[in-house]
Amino acid sequence: MYTIPIQIRFNDVDIFGHVNNSVYNQYLDLGRVGYFQSVLEEATQWHGKTIVLVRIENNYLLPTFLHDKIEVRTNVYEMGNRSVKMHQQVVDENGQIRLESYSVLSTFDSDTNASFLLPDEWRKKIEEHENQK
Amino acid sequence: MYTIPIQIRFNDVDIFGHVNNSVYNQYLDLGRVGYFQSVLEEATQWHGKTIVLVRIENNYLLPTFLHDKIEVRTNVYEMGNRSVKMHQQVVDENGQIRLESYSVLSTFDSDTNASFLLPDEWRKKIEEHENQK
Amino acid sequence: MYTIPIQIRFNDVDIFGHVNNSVYNQYLDLGRVGYFQSVLEEATQWHGKTIVLVRIENNYLLPTFLHDKIEVRTNVYEMGNRSVKMHQQVVDENGQIRLESYSVLSTFDSDTNASFLLPDEWRKKIEEHENQK
Amino acid sequence: MYTIPIQIRFNDVDIFGHVNNSVYNQYLDLGRVGYFQSVLEEATQWHGKTIVLVRIENNYLLPTFLHDKIEVRTNVYEMGNRSVKMHQQVVDENGQIRLESYSVLSTFDSDTNASFLLPDEWRKKIEEHENQK
Repeated sequence: MYTIPIQIRFNDVDIFGHVNNSVYNQYLDLGRVGYFQSVLEEATQWHGKTIVLVRIENNYLLPTFLHDKIEVRTNVYEMGNRSVKMHQQVVDENGQIRLESYSVLSTFDSDTNASFLLPDEWRKKIEEHENQK
Repeated sequence: MYTIPIQIRFNDVDIFGHVNNSVYNQYLDLGRVGYFQSVLEEATQWHGKTIVLVRIENNYLLPTFLHDKIEVRTNVYEMGNRSVKMHQQVVDENGQIRLESYSVLSTFDSDTNASFLLPDEWRKKIEEHENQK
Repeated sequence: MYTIPIQIRFNDVDIFGHVNNSVYNQYLDLGRVGYFQSVLEEATQWHGKTIVLVRIENNYLLPTFLHDKIEVRTNVYEMGNRSVKMHQQVVDENGQIRLESYSVLSTFDSDTNASFLLPDEWRKKIEEHENQK
Repeated sequence: MYTIPIQIRFNDVDIFGHVNNSVYNQYLDLGRVGYFQSVLEEATQWHGKTIVLVRIENNYLLPTFLHDKIEVRTNVYEMGNRSVKMHQQVVDENGQIRLESYSVLSTFDSDTNASFLLPDEWRKKIEEHENQK
């Protein structure tokens, strides 16, 4: 599991006094980018071989307020030939889950404009990371 | 179906040159708020009886670029006792679907901090709107 | 003067119920990008010769609410050798000014990483536009 | 001086590969809110007596990239009867200033919809904080 604390910004919070639904996706991005940097030990690339989001499902369980302490927890729970499935949670300091998210990411080569086979090295590093704990 | 054209902003677009995944939720919010204003003929309220997002599923089918012309199409396709199910699409000027979204919204009374039965008048107005076309 | 109506989004509005100070800059971007597209008759480019913001001063005169009707008005009021000075206003449907903004933009060539002399053709088109009205 | 490190998000960065001009205002908000919480030892309030932004001037000196380490430094350098003047900098890990910002904030009582005299206790705490270092 990869964990990253989130710095909530003043205007993450909408007129309801809660973090806006769209802003959680920015938090989940922090988890996703951090996961791949940490596990694949390379900075996410914007050109060439990368991984893009194709599907996301968010369940808003509890609202988040401006002064809450939250973190994003990220796991890869399944790997296909050209894709990975990710489970993410936004969790507060008491361990309560505020948001539960499931997503599908696909490999994408911006040079060929197509997906590519998940490299064995990536697969191995992700497996090792997930088996660790 | 309720349709609203979207004004894409310069910083909706991330380093990939595509509208960022989180920004689509802002577009879908425009569709959602507009739908209820149009169909229920009352401004969305931030206090008292309102409707909140509890679950959303986004399928990113095609990327959106800064100068694209897009609109959000919104339908309610199912109504429960205390919730509605919504189908939304981000569609370009050629009718191509860029994003497909399914969401669940719940009634919520901020005075009692609980859900409430979907009022018959809301139900009737939504049914009439959906049967129209 | 170049005028563009603004589509206010649900989460532009913060916990105070007003459009957040940072969001006005997104509105001003719409005016700025639209001005150059309209006046220079070419899409703003992200590579090669472009114009970048180096200084902005915003005066928040009146708050903007979710259901307000506003537009951004943009003028270039001075041109230097390598820069232009811009005046922008966020104005409501009654002509009341909500925000007054003054900015300095510099030419910037991303290939050479340096500014360049404002092309005569750009200068002429801007002058013609500003003298029109 | 009050200092806060900034967590840069993936979509803070626009198509140029730089943090977008509007996003710096979100960073400065983090400095501003943190300053008042730290110095006045009370959470910023959204109702009753608060402090609002009336003018901001940003000078964009150097671009910020996704993987940069930056912090916001905040000082109050002048106090009037009903307002304070603030100086803020976005600084990288080498001490280079990326953005320099000057702002004016006014007291604002949301109950009376008017400004109020800066309380002596606030004035004293701010003076003490600024003289400390």
